[in-house]
Amino acid sequence: MINQERLWDKLMQLAHIGKQVEGGITRLPFTEEDLQAKNLVKEWMQEAGLQVREDAVGNLVGRKEGTEPSFPAIIIGSHLDTVFNGGMFDGSLGVLAGIEILQTMKENLIQTKHPIEVYAFRDEEGCRFNFSLLGSRGVAGNLKPSDLEFKDRDGITIKEAMKKCHLRPEEFSQAVRNPEEVKAYLELHIEQGKVLECSNLPVGVVTGIAGSLRLLLTVTGKADHAGATPMNLRADALAGAAQIICMVEQEAKESQSAVATVGRIQAYPGGINIIPGKVEFTIDLRHLSPEVCARLEKNILEKANEICKQRGLDLKVDLMQRVPPAPCSEEIIATILESCDKLDVKTMKLPSGAGHDAMQMINISPIGMIFVRSKKGISHHPAEWSSPEDCALGANVLMETVLKLDQM
Amino acid sequence: MINQERLWDKLMQLAHIGKQVEGGITRLPFTEEDLQAKNLVKEWMQEAGLQVREDAVGNLVGRKEGTEPSFPAIIIGSHLDTVFNGGMFDGSLGVLAGIEILQTMKENLIQTKHPIEVYAFRDEEGCRFNFSLLGSRGVAGNLKPSDLEFKDRDGITIKEAMKKCHLRPEEFSQAVRNPEEVKAYLELHIEQGKVLECSNLPVGVVTGIAGSLRLLLTVTGKADHAGATPMNLRADALAGAAQIICMVEQEAKESQSAVATVGRIQAYPGGINIIPGKVEFTIDLRHLSPEVCARLEKNILEKANEICKQRGLDLKVDLMQRVPPAPCSEEIIATILESCDKLDVKTMKLPSGAGHDAMQMINISPIGMIFVRSKKGISHHPAEWSSPEDCALGANVLMETVLKLDQM
Repeated sequence: MINQERLWDKLMQLAHIGKQVEGGITRLPFTEEDLQAKNLVKEWMQEAGLQVREDAVGNLVGRKEGTEPSFPAIIIGSHLDTVFNGGMFDGSLGVLAGIEILQTMKENLIQTKHPIEVYAFRDEEGCRFNFSLLGSRGVAGNLKPSDLEFKDRDGITIKEAMKKCHLRPEEFSQAVRNPEEVKAYLELHIEQGKVLECSNLPVGVVTGIAGSLRLLLTVTGKADHAGATPMNLRADALAGAAQIICMVEQEAKESQSAVATVGRIQAYPGGINIIPGKVEFTIDLRHLSPEVCARLEKNILEKANEICKQRGLDLKVDLMQRVPPAPCSEEIIATILESCDKLDVKTMKLPSGAGHDAMQMINISPIGMIFVRSKKGISHHPAEWSSPEDCALGANVLMETVLKLDQM
Repeated sequence: MINQERLWDKLMQLAHIGKQVEGGITRLPFTEEDLQAKNLVKEWMQEAGLQVREDAVGNLVGRKEGTEPSFPAIIIGSHLDTVFNGGMFDGSLGVLAGIEILQTMKENLIQTKHPIEVYAFRDEEGCRFNFSLLGSRGVAGNLKPSDLEFKDRDGITIKEAMKKCHLRPEEFSQAVRNPEEVKAYLELHIEQGKVLECSNLPVGVVTGIAGSLRLLLTVTGKADHAGATPMNLRADALAGAAQIICMVEQEAKESQSAVATVGRIQAYPGGINIIPGKVEFTIDLRHLSPEVCARLEKNILEKANEICKQRGLDLKVDLMQRVPPAPCSEEIIATILESCDKLDVKTMKLPSGAGHDAMQMINISPIGMIFVRSKKGISHHPAEWSSPEDCALGANVLMETVLKLDQM
């Protein structure tokens, strides 16, 4: 069993790097805080007996060889960067749990056949450059040279920021791993939702990462005087948008497992006494099954068009983003379930609505994810919290899973 | 009959003062454009044989004595200021029609028993200081010293702006008129809606100005991760707000003659991938009958509370403004209808959803209003338009009404 106290202590130490006045943590990629975190984690990797290197996109990689030199690696990964004023578990837990299980194996003289690697990915959140999963994209071969031109608030590109950290952005493709070198990718992460808490379970087995669709809808009617225009002579863009928002919620509820969210809305011209002539709003739609997602998208757009037609409104739909779902490997899901069973950890299967580095790693490896219960589902916030006991349970399940996969 | 060409010519001349590059007119109170407009209108009043003065709040007042010195005045009024980039009819038509009918009477040697006054009110729109009906409030005795402390964008108060125009703000109460001095207040105005156009009528008889209620609703739920929070674990403030907005529209439709508008909405935190934890939106509710308005307000708030309760949301309602309705005098309505009949002008009765100086004048006098058809209902916009023929018809109805009232 892993050392719960040691894992927790490292989480606390890491949480001091980038600590904000408001209590949260801000560790943006390629900053002084990022460098500090990386150096600290590098030391811990070395203590755990890993050979450490930094790859071409700045991921920190610790490797322990297996007894069979020709076997592919089991990779454990997550990230060290945070959002602005974020929490201390998102990302960090996965990296530190990886190191902790290798430290535990070292202490217990457990030798695996497969090499085991721990990746601390660079820039998962994408908060600095508005471009997420940089490190894991690099490893998965999903990075284009033009991606490095994204700029932060101060106009600094990813490329420039990488150079300041003595990386060689022009050689970023050297970070790519060959699928033949990787047996499995495992990630332990906090749930960032309240499904486990509501189910009273410490740990969950992730079935896959939902695909996401982001749409921008623009409803156009006619801005008129709020007092002088009778109800039957209106083309109220906001009344139409409100009806669509209600319908989107209803459709997602009826689909059972999908989620749909309207998070941003803007009404124009925005005067209290003016009927809105134009409303823009976003729809964020997620589901594990591409078929369900496609059907939901079709239904929503058909009904939105119908609503606008009936109201004499114009509807424009812009695609902002479409990310395919990343299903976890059935074999790994079964292995994690067996591990929970062996350790007597009560668990459940659940999808991940949030994105993770595993979404990229699926391009080169089967993936598996273990979730740890989040208090009140809060994440990306200083109040983000998982108990020491739950974190340790998750890490133990991770270790057991690695050992089982090593035998397969 | 009035001189259609002369009236139109004056409208066009006035429209050049404050003309914007985009084609609209911006004539804010106590500005250079305002002064130019006032001087031009003053000349026209004098040409029409009126004695002109500027009262303590800056209203331009032209008076023609009647044959009976003890009789109260019939006042014709409207305003010369505009919104930002507004149209050329809103306000101006009423003032210029008043002058035109007095010019016509002068030319036709028509002498009334009652004195007739034309008021060009200062600052009806309230666009500069976010405080409307300044001039007519002053005349109606509805102005408080603290009202003059409202500031424009540059931090200049109404008081300071008045002083720059050589007015004496501390003496503003001298503008108040004694109800005994006023027999009736008449206002000719463009409809600013499309009821007349849809009814194919050039002129309408206003039954009254709707009372208005402005509420700010704040719906509070819980901001959560859009991907990690299943539909049944959400307290989505925007989904709740959307349901309320649909309900508000439905309630107004069912009430027949009321109008309700949600013109402004803001969702927080506003991230595409975050369930809105808080939404603020306004409701603007108008009706001629205080009873209908009160019942509608009660229904809407009860149902909004019910919606929030069912969704686990919190609802806060702030009153922003409550203006009582201003019903037109039944006697004046009848007189206008008779005048239309006599002139063979087809007409209809309709309420005014928009506010007008008449709302203030009702405090010292019975009021009557005549509407002229607006093209497509557009107002507060460069495209605001009423035809020369419709404007002239409205002015003729106004003159006939004045002459009839003079006999009563």
